[in-house]
Amino acid sequence: MTARLDLNADLGEGFGRWTAGDDDGLLTVISSANVACGFHAGDPVIMRQVCEQAVARGVAIGAQVSYRDLAGFGRRRIEMEPAELTADVLYQLGALDGFARAAGDRVRYLKPHGALYHAAATDPVVAAAIVDALRAWPDPLPVLTLPGSRLARHALDAGLPAFAEAFADRAYRPDGGLVPRREPGSVLTDPATVAERTLRLARSGTLLAVDGTELRLSPDSVCVHGDTPGALEIARAVRAALAEAGVEVARFG
Amino acid sequence: MTARLDLNADLGEGFGRWTAGDDDGLLTVISSANVACGFHAGDPVIMRQVCEQAVARGVAIGAQVSYRDLAGFGRRRIEMEPAELTADVLYQLGALDGFARAAGDRVRYLKPHGALYHAAATDPVVAAAIVDALRAWPDPLPVLTLPGSRLARHALDAGLPAFAEAFADRAYRPDGGLVPRREPGSVLTDPATVAERTLRLARSGTLLAVDGTELRLSPDSVCVHGDTPGALEIARAVRAALAEAGVEVARFG
Amino acid sequence: MTARLDLNADLGEGFGRWTAGDDDGLLTVISSANVACGFHAGDPVIMRQVCEQAVARGVAIGAQVSYRDLAGFGRRRIEMEPAELTADVLYQLGALDGFARAAGDRVRYLKPHGALYHAAATDPVVAAAIVDALRAWPDPLPVLTLPGSRLARHALDAGLPAFAEAFADRAYRPDGGLVPRREPGSVLTDPATVAERTLRLARSGTLLAVDGTELRLSPDSVCVHGDTPGALEIARAVRAALAEAGVEVARFG
Amino acid sequence: MTARLDLNADLGEGFGRWTAGDDDGLLTVISSANVACGFHAGDPVIMRQVCEQAVARGVAIGAQVSYRDLAGFGRRRIEMEPAELTADVLYQLGALDGFARAAGDRVRYLKPHGALYHAAATDPVVAAAIVDALRAWPDPLPVLTLPGSRLARHALDAGLPAFAEAFADRAYRPDGGLVPRREPGSVLTDPATVAERTLRLARSGTLLAVDGTELRLSPDSVCVHGDTPGALEIARAVRAALAEAGVEVARFG
Repeated sequence: MTARLDLNADLGEGFGRWTAGDDDGLLTVISSANVACGFHAGDPVIMRQVCEQAVARGVAIGAQVSYRDLAGFGRRRIEMEPAELTADVLYQLGALDGFARAAGDRVRYLKPHGALYHAAATDPVVAAAIVDALRAWPDPLPVLTLPGSRLARHALDAGLPAFAEAFADRAYRPDGGLVPRREPGSVLTDPATVAERTLRLARSGTLLAVDGTELRLSPDSVCVHGDTPGALEIARAVRAALAEAGVEVARFG
Repeated sequence: MTARLDLNADLGEGFGRWTAGDDDGLLTVISSANVACGFHAGDPVIMRQVCEQAVARGVAIGAQVSYRDLAGFGRRRIEMEPAELTADVLYQLGALDGFARAAGDRVRYLKPHGALYHAAATDPVVAAAIVDALRAWPDPLPVLTLPGSRLARHALDAGLPAFAEAFADRAYRPDGGLVPRREPGSVLTDPATVAERTLRLARSGTLLAVDGTELRLSPDSVCVHGDTPGALEIARAVRAALAEAGVEVARFG
Repeated sequence: MTARLDLNADLGEGFGRWTAGDDDGLLTVISSANVACGFHAGDPVIMRQVCEQAVARGVAIGAQVSYRDLAGFGRRRIEMEPAELTADVLYQLGALDGFARAAGDRVRYLKPHGALYHAAATDPVVAAAIVDALRAWPDPLPVLTLPGSRLARHALDAGLPAFAEAFADRAYRPDGGLVPRREPGSVLTDPATVAERTLRLARSGTLLAVDGTELRLSPDSVCVHGDTPGALEIARAVRAALAEAGVEVARFG
Repeated sequence: MTARLDLNADLGEGFGRWTAGDDDGLLTVISSANVACGFHAGDPVIMRQVCEQAVARGVAIGAQVSYRDLAGFGRRRIEMEPAELTADVLYQLGALDGFARAAGDRVRYLKPHGALYHAAATDPVVAAAIVDALRAWPDPLPVLTLPGSRLARHALDAGLPAFAEAFADRAYRPDGGLVPRREPGSVLTDPATVAERTLRLARSGTLLAVDGTELRLSPDSVCVHGDTPGALEIARAVRAALAEAGVEVARFG
């Protein structure tokens, strides 16, 4: 049984006049904020506000780095040179770290977003390009990603921590991968179901895949989504489920 | 007579496949590099390369922050809220600082680019918005700008250093302002003329305005442009003139 | 008394995953759609959908052209060369016209957005730059803007129609200008109030300014906003008020 | 033996202050201009100028459509939904057509750029998405692409003309594909060699692949590059070679 678990969510995913998700509400629930860095979402005003609020609440700031793709919200894979990707990751890391330091903390971890998350999980070239950015970064920075993924393994090989996340509100394939977002049933929106899965994760470190296979995930963090309908309600249900299980919500980073 | 002077130039002003200026050549001549931060020019690959080369040569890295305007190369003023400008400046500062730290140094000063340079020199709201970014920045960061400008005064009022720059290759108005770039004769391209003006700056701290008025500038740094025809030749002429005057080229930051 | 009035609203102002306004709902109410062209909002997928739906409903398509400013939603003035602005307007006009023609119609009018709307109303250089784009456009294209504005006068001088719009949901200054959006009370959100003002516009062509001055506006079109709270409800109230006044809602373009 | 051949080149590939290629020079040599539409290069001012100059010289205007990728110059494949790609192509087509019509002509053909060119040549989904844009376009618009490519076949299936281009200055693989740009020897820069290959193309419709295989290409157009060192010299050599072979340079579109 896990005595402590991190709870993470994507924050700051608006841009300019466009908003996305209830950042203020989520910051009362989560312990780690994956903050968009301007490449798929997140303008500087939003980034600054989220960093200030996260620091005020003791929430860890993570860099939610992405492909440069505002029009596609970072959900489209871009075939780029590894050195380009490494530089793009460093740029986003630095930009967010400036806001985090201005707010009195610093970036505590990296979590790729969208298409980059999936590419880094399976493609060794992409995973290595991201880890190259982390090697160049002055502080040792952990990754938050799927356990056993390419990115996790490359980070560990480089001597960097890799924290495992599980999704209480996403359907899993039997191989431990996520059911793609476009397939029906891939995103769970019933708070009771998500709470039940969270409890299972907390108590046994497992989840059931779509075919009933029991997956041993042993997560360090549970991800809740901020932009699905009723997202805040779900996040609160997850937090309540963890309290019920006697699990303390605490940041890893 | 000045025993030491800084020599600064704009670097990293390409974007993607487009190049601008001879960065490698200029890095052998200057002591301070105003590095574009991605808003008017400068993609992450270029920023990383310039930072690595600058650190390798002992050249100070300055953040050449700009309005967000790739299409206009930052030469068009944008009327934005002060809080937006402050956040945009912090974003660029942070992004460049990440590359500077990855290369083993850090950002040493801030110099606004193009329309922002001119707005910050005369508009107190713009100057204050930039200084607000510097106040939020964890390290005290000097500005490099026109002596007596609004930005210089606001920085000094905030307890931050302000270093004065003079332009050996730009025509001055009698009031100490620059002749706008679009007017004929605003940019000097004859190496001998520029060298002569540099010598005058080094020996007496003065320059002659377009109407012959003697301007007392007492610069800490002389700016040479990287993107004019024969820019490198001019920069070398300036450096040679300083050597002839017995002035050591040394970074202030 | 006016027997026919146009009803216009801004449409297609989302971008990528971000949405803004209830385009489908508004298309059942309005007769003219000011479609965002990608510079302040509106990606190609959205533009195509809005054009197809507008044509299907017989709603006229207008080009809602803007400064190039996604981060500022086109609400920040950019000081650019007239030739740059003319080219930017032509680019947006052409892009939208392609979708309009693909849907079986064509762009029927031009209405500037945000900061460009206000700049074109008062600055003759900006107004002339926009009219230069219209002069270059193969078909004679009317403008939709404030009556008596610089843009209206420049268009008329060029032999192009200028249709006058009034805002039922915006407060007016005594000089006929709009109370700036940031001032309290500048945007009216009570459907009954907006309906009453619409009736007055329809019956007498007048509105009361914030100080009680009666303004003679004689509009060809009434603008309803799509992105304010309860926007669709207000638009329906306006349409109902026009029906009550015996005024037919009909496109001018 | 071919009595007439088109000569095409990429034009307008600067952006803002950055320039690329000698557009004025190339327009004196070619008969068809593939004009960048703003997604990989080409701002509205450049697009307008190129269109005006092309029309003045009787050069056909083609839409050089691309992935939305200024930072990567359109050389990076983006995995996007077909409907997104179709809309992006229509947007670019429309924007360029506005300038072409303002200049007195219209867009005469479509040629994809960079990564989109290669994706459309081999991936049926990409080819179909582009052809969907052409189906939606009000005028029947030919494609200019590799003979036998997916895009050519999809266009022909849709009843649209497909014109075949050959590259006098690119190395070919034995299967008729181009040697990727990053491989050594992929781009030929010796004017004499390029002229000789042009003559062969004009006289026999064939080229030799890197392994000596004779490829039967029977091109309608020969592509010369505008951005390689000595590009204009090469283009002139090609034109002279065609004149020597008694081949008239004439636009197909």
